[in-house]
Amino acid sequence: MYVGVDVGGTKVLAVAIQDRGPGIEVIGSVTVPMPGRAAPEAEIEHAMARAARAVATGTGTVRGVGISGAGLVDAAGERVRFAAHLPWRDAPVRSRLEGLLGVPATLDNDANCAAYAEIVGGAARGVDSAVLITVGTGIGGALVLGGRLHRGANGAAGEFGHVQVVPDGLACECGLRGCWEQYCSGRALERVMRVAVGRHYDGPQVTALARGGDEVAVRSIASVGTWLGVGAAGLVSAFDPEVVIVGGGVSAVGDLLLDPARAAMAESLQGAGYRVVPELVPAAFGPEAGAIGAALLARDGR
Amino acid sequence: MYVGVDVGGTKVLAVAIQDRGPGIEVIGSVTVPMPGRAAPEAEIEHAMARAARAVATGTGTVRGVGISGAGLVDAAGERVRFAAHLPWRDAPVRSRLEGLLGVPATLDNDANCAAYAEIVGGAARGVDSAVLITVGTGIGGALVLGGRLHRGANGAAGEFGHVQVVPDGLACECGLRGCWEQYCSGRALERVMRVAVGRHYDGPQVTALARGGDEVAVRSIASVGTWLGVGAAGLVSAFDPEVVIVGGGVSAVGDLLLDPARAAMAESLQGAGYRVVPELVPAAFGPEAGAIGAALLARDGR
Repeated sequence: MYVGVDVGGTKVLAVAIQDRGPGIEVIGSVTVPMPGRAAPEAEIEHAMARAARAVATGTGTVRGVGISGAGLVDAAGERVRFAAHLPWRDAPVRSRLEGLLGVPATLDNDANCAAYAEIVGGAARGVDSAVLITVGTGIGGALVLGGRLHRGANGAAGEFGHVQVVPDGLACECGLRGCWEQYCSGRALERVMRVAVGRHYDGPQVTALARGGDEVAVRSIASVGTWLGVGAAGLVSAFDPEVVIVGGGVSAVGDLLLDPARAAMAESLQGAGYRVVPELVPAAFGPEAGAIGAALLARDGR
Repeated sequence: MYVGVDVGGTKVLAVAIQDRGPGIEVIGSVTVPMPGRAAPEAEIEHAMARAARAVATGTGTVRGVGISGAGLVDAAGERVRFAAHLPWRDAPVRSRLEGLLGVPATLDNDANCAAYAEIVGGAARGVDSAVLITVGTGIGGALVLGGRLHRGANGAAGEFGHVQVVPDGLACECGLRGCWEQYCSGRALERVMRVAVGRHYDGPQVTALARGGDEVAVRSIASVGTWLGVGAAGLVSAFDPEVVIVGGGVSAVGDLLLDPARAAMAESLQGAGYRVVPELVPAAFGPEAGAIGAALLARDGR
């Protein structure tokens, strides 16, 4: 089998997949607590190794491990160059995990991993060109071109979350201002809701409220969805993909997010009525997409 | 020989190139007045045909004509679907010009044509991936991927000029608000200068003043350059190209525009110090790039 490991805001997730067959069969899944965003990098890497070992225990021989790394991954798939939300700075994460686990390791950007899962068995299957936007704590992104991941000249393509959408806008953890993910993410949703009602709800609570008909929650999700559509329109203007795929934790809320996004995307494209507006569809894989895709990349090669 | 025709804001340009050889030899160039942006489309097309006939007169047999069309061109290269600054709406421009001229015609987006000239013999020669930004009356754009033009699923890739950069920003001719070209173009330069000094100078006058050391003119060009860099950073975040190439009439001012753009681009990318920042270089071809590239596409095939 192959194992994929993904580091989230609060937990580290490892999944195991079968090593044969065209489909994707997840045969195990383990989470361990995330040591914290300010924890030393070695501690985070040890947590990743613990999760990978735990999911493998008693289920067969691990042939390789895939690492889904949040942040800029170099073109060779060796290092995390920079992670806005984690301590990695030019860190040789691939070889470190290979050393800790004693099996061949593969590293890619987390959204690239998620996109690879969509290519193999999800919304990008059989598609020539796609933009994937993962809306979670922040925004991740990936480009599919010619049916394959497009990683860019330096492995840094798809970093949509840090495109400026508001001049002198909200400060971002990456050090810039007005980044798209400040307006379109789980954190943005919590902020919009907090401003509207004067108290804190986390993302799942806002979703539950919205599903129960709470108008402020519905409007808060629509605000994030509108920003999703505006940003997606920019990507469509630039790349003209066949399809826009939206994944990530926030996308679990479904059409309460996606319908405002579809409307805003269509309204933000020049030449309305004279052009093809791509479909905006949900990703097939949920919160496990990064880990599953990392395992698939370990199996298939980058 | 092959002829290329480009429609600008004030004139229609036709060039003729040799039909053989790996290089680009421009053997003739003719301009005729542009009938006006509100003129009937047939009048604009007749002006294009007149320019093409004029450049061909007495210089040999025309084997094909390339049309550099401002706006969204369909994937097949038959129609201009939408042009923000011209009356074409789903107009079969290729077959109309072929009918008027009696030789095979090829149609592509004007920035794609300019990018093709750069691929054949300019700043994109031998380059795997590039972003071309043409800063003229508006902004044109093109993507080079795998050493070739990337036209997108519907022929509409590279429409950078109509990406929103300011929420509820300045109204654009395309019908949207806050489009990048409202802040980074020849018109933007004229507006910034007019606001600063209270009277109208056209682009070439601002350039002349800046070259003579006029501080307001220098600052006005730098404002456009800063917006150029901010937008370029967004494209680099999304696409991670080897190089960013800047062409178009406004780029003739050189480093007065490009140095502020380089600074703003570097400052607007996450992970400074941990990533490769691509070079931002001037295009090799000037205002004739669209027409030359159109002629080359007629010669080489799209």
